[in-house]
Amino acid sequence: MSTKLVLVRHGQSVWNKENRFTGWKDVDLTEQGREEARTAGELLKEAGFEFDVAYTSVLKRAIRTLWTIMDTMDQMWIPVIRDYRLNERHYGALQGLNKAETAAKYGDDQVHIWRRSYDTPPPKMERDDERYAGNFRVYQGLNEEQIPLSESLKDTVDRFVPYFESEIKPQIEAGKQVLICAHGNSLRALVKYLGDISDEEIVKLNIPTGVPMVYELDDNLKAVKNYYLGDAEAVAAAAEAVANQGKA
Amino acid sequence: MSTKLVLVRHGQSVWNKENRFTGWKDVDLTEQGREEARTAGELLKEAGFEFDVAYTSVLKRAIRTLWTIMDTMDQMWIPVIRDYRLNERHYGALQGLNKAETAAKYGDDQVHIWRRSYDTPPPKMERDDERYAGNFRVYQGLNEEQIPLSESLKDTVDRFVPYFESEIKPQIEAGKQVLICAHGNSLRALVKYLGDISDEEIVKLNIPTGVPMVYELDDNLKAVKNYYLGDAEAVAAAAEAVANQGKA
Repeated sequence: MSTKLVLVRHGQSVWNKENRFTGWKDVDLTEQGREEARTAGELLKEAGFEFDVAYTSVLKRAIRTLWTIMDTMDQMWIPVIRDYRLNERHYGALQGLNKAETAAKYGDDQVHIWRRSYDTPPPKMERDDERYAGNFRVYQGLNEEQIPLSESLKDTVDRFVPYFESEIKPQIEAGKQVLICAHGNSLRALVKYLGDISDEEIVKLNIPTGVPMVYELDDNLKAVKNYYLGDAEAVAAAAEAVANQGKA
Repeated sequence: MSTKLVLVRHGQSVWNKENRFTGWKDVDLTEQGREEARTAGELLKEAGFEFDVAYTSVLKRAIRTLWTIMDTMDQMWIPVIRDYRLNERHYGALQGLNKAETAAKYGDDQVHIWRRSYDTPPPKMERDDERYAGNFRVYQGLNEEQIPLSESLKDTVDRFVPYFESEIKPQIEAGKQVLICAHGNSLRALVKYLGDISDEEIVKLNIPTGVPMVYELDDNLKAVKNYYLGDAEAVAAAAEAVANQGKA
């Protein structure tokens, strides 16, 4: 059996554009981000994908990207499952800060560690912070242990991969064509799992916004092949732009 | 316990505008329909509704109406469940025909019977008809008995009400604030059930497009009170417009 799984990182968000640490903050797409999502939908349509089910986070930048893809592909009827475990990595106390300003204050090296260390979380957010996720209705069914105050990429892996294994993997194994529309770090977590990528290597991987990534998987759901849809040079430039965001 | 349930009929569709029998044909909203959906979202937001879960059909005019409401209310994260049992009444062989032309051909009385009799279905569609729902991927998980060739309002009641009782009612009983975004006749089916409305009376009820209907329910989920949100005159005019569609 060879089966395909499609991953899409949401299009450019307002805070991507402003170069701020976003995490669980529910910012919307920019007009460019919406256009990226439409292009993603067109590429998937041209490639002939017919999805059976889609998964996304509870953050509107991912949901709107998914909606736009479904609309462009004329597949608005497919079931959509939203889950907070597909959310972006929680950026702790850094959430909302400008990446370049943070780099100027703490130094490029410290910001690079926070952004790209596998297991060093950024400084924690306090529970009485107005940004605390527990203040928002969407997270009110969760207990305190489930609401992060800060996450390393490893924490994001530990949150998303068990969900993937218990909820999404059985769908793929049942032959369903699955689309996952999520975030830079939650997708990194999944890509690490699918490709058995080391802790050192995964932090160097930059996933461009709004570009469909196709994974061809073997019987154990490990990647035998993966590629982006669309123009290769544009994809490389988009990934490079993500890599450079944390520099002062 | 008194609990609220909100129903919204999708905004004006292209075939509403062209005055054609739509049924399960997957036509989109007009620009006016999209505007109606935005207004519905604004009214629900002003009224302070916070939904926990939303149900809709697998037809894009209902899904887009729901998406627009969720977007306008900034509640894009709420779970959405799509099910074909919330679809519009299947209009059989009449699907796609212009209502006024059909009335000119068969007479106002016959069309009125097809549109407004409780238990007389329109002429059946054949299974080899290109319009047959079984030809479309969205319905390929269904068996032949589940795919209608034509439906009376009674048939629509028999399809939707058991789904409401088994899937939606338990959510309401668990205290969830539920939004249902569906179609003129699937909502008529539900309104009949909630209000214990007779077969004779229900066929006279015209539900305007894109206007939120609030049902306050008792412990047995029977309506103790119901009202539209928004300007009363505009609502009455919209309902009247629906009532007049079938006249030559």
